Amino acid sequence: MNLINRVAIVGGSHGNELIGVFLVKKFQKNVNLIIRSSFQTLSVLGNLKAIQENKRYIDKDLNRCFHAYGLQDNSPSTYEDLRAKEIHQILHPNNQTGVDAIIDLHTTTSNMGISIILSNQHPFLLNLGAYLSTINPLVKICVHEQPKFSGFLRSICNFGIVVEVGAVPQGVLHAELFQQTEQVVYAILDYFQASNQGKTPKTSNILTAYQSINIVDYPRNEVGEIAAMIHPQLQYQDYQPLHPGEPMFVTFNGENIIYKGESTVYPIFINEAAYYEKGIAMHFTQKQEIHL
Amino acid sequence: MNLINRVAIVGGSHGNELIGVFLVKKFQKNVNLIIRSSFQTLSVLGNLKAIQENKRYIDKDLNRCFHAYGLQDNSPSTYEDLRAKEIHQILHPNNQTGVDAIIDLHTTTSNMGISIILSNQHPFLLNLGAYLSTINPLVKICVHEQPKFSGFLRSICNFGIVVEVGAVPQGVLHAELFQQTEQVVYAILDYFQASNQGKTPKTSNILTAYQSINIVDYPRNEVGEIAAMIHPQLQYQDYQPLHPGEPMFVTFNGENIIYKGESTVYPIFINEAAYYEKGIAMHFTQKQEIHL
Repeated sequence: MNLINRVAIVGGSHGNELIGVFLVKKFQKNVNLIIRSSFQTLSVLGNLKAIQENKRYIDKDLNRCFHAYGLQDNSPSTYEDLRAKEIHQILHPNNQTGVDAIIDLHTTTSNMGISIILSNQHPFLLNLGAYLSTINPLVKICVHEQPKFSGFLRSICNFGIVVEVGAVPQGVLHAELFQQTEQVVYAILDYFQASNQGKTPKTSNILTAYQSINIVDYPRNEVGEIAAMIHPQLQYQDYQPLHPGEPMFVTFNGENIIYKGESTVYPIFINEAAYYEKGIAMHFTQKQEIHL
Repeated sequence: MNLINRVAIVGGSHGNELIGVFLVKKFQKNVNLIIRSSFQTLSVLGNLKAIQENKRYIDKDLNRCFHAYGLQDNSPSTYEDLRAKEIHQILHPNNQTGVDAIIDLHTTTSNMGISIILSNQHPFLLNLGAYLSTINPLVKICVHEQPKFSGFLRSICNFGIVVEVGAVPQGVLHAELFQQTEQVVYAILDYFQASNQGKTPKTSNILTAYQSINIVDYPRNEVGEIAAMIHPQLQYQDYQPLHPGEPMFVTFNGENIIYKGESTVYPIFINEAAYYEKGIAMHFTQKQEIHL
């Protein structure tokens, strides 16, 4: 029995992350690129209005709108609540089998290279992560476990996969990262196809994965305004170890603020533009060796 | 007689270019940093509403609103037309002497390092450019001549100076570029002070300057949509020579589009996010040696 019968590739969940937008447009014009014989593949543009306006979102972040309660709401009050319902309906039509996997295409202003964020630790996903990092050792695998229908698009199916590439500014195309994202999408589809055909690719038995442990905000002043910047020694150092006592931030007057934790962490999403308003300067992760 | 009696430092003409915004806030809290004995210095936040909303602009680009006709319009129809009039009034109050120089702080997603854009070729400005590139050889000097009141903020005074730093995404603080911008501002103020005191710093007799010659748009399809990306070989190569026959763009299908001009040019503002909507993929410049 096939594990994967239906797959969705989504670009432009954030309207100003152009690589996903233009890649999905390419797939929609050239469907043969994403057709595999053992399953059906949809390609979907996410936040249509925000794509048109070259913004992350209109009213609120679409990628936080896939909650069970929101999707059941019959009178959504924002554009994104409405669009989340529409996308859910496309991916899980009434009385039909929904998608088994979602490949959600994102970019980040952080220096995360080619990152894959897995929605859970199902062996099928972990093995996919090992496969992707075997064929391209620069690919990094993150695990950010979320319950089903937790708000994230990737949470509304069994196998949620985010392709997160950077550093690229919002509203900018970056040819090399575009091409690398495209190759990762094909590799994922090929993995699904091989798996359905009982020929799951052999990989290393050990997966290096970065597990989200917590978020860190910027230092702020008494009125909540940012009071320090990412330290130059930490800027662009996503996935590198941050040891206790090393600088994290520098104030506008040049004073260093150090990391006071007790154990080494591996920050990611360092200085992501869209996270300023969310109160996130970076995510801390732990580096793990997972035995498959 | 002093050449410089009044100077304005403006940050946030574009609301999501955070380095200028936070630097002006710093100057407003610590005015001693920008006080020089021989002239008065104002520090002004540009597009207040856009800064609050972390956008480039609300209705239209403020830095194209400083036209004589707009500034004389008694019923401005957009927020930026109104704000341009307000800024003009702050910088050139009725019946008082206006500012002689404007230092307008910007960031770009292009890899332009520390760039200084001069509004004209007055010997005083060219000598300033030579001084700044002498004390920091990484500083690049551009000349983009504009008639007075041509729409740009820098065009409403005798000595218009843009500090343009990158690569930095919109909506992002970058500590190293923040500190470098700050040092350039002090160097400009110190140059004005020395000049007023008859001690204009000695510099090299030759200034290397990049003179804007024309703009280049992205290749577009029949409905005007972008059809190719900046080529990986050109990405981040601001100020480097582009020779006839070298690749400029790559289509989404991987075909190269080459530069078909007859002479070598030096592109800047390569892949600037805010210029997609203006139909600008880059500016071509000529590299010139100006004898002072």
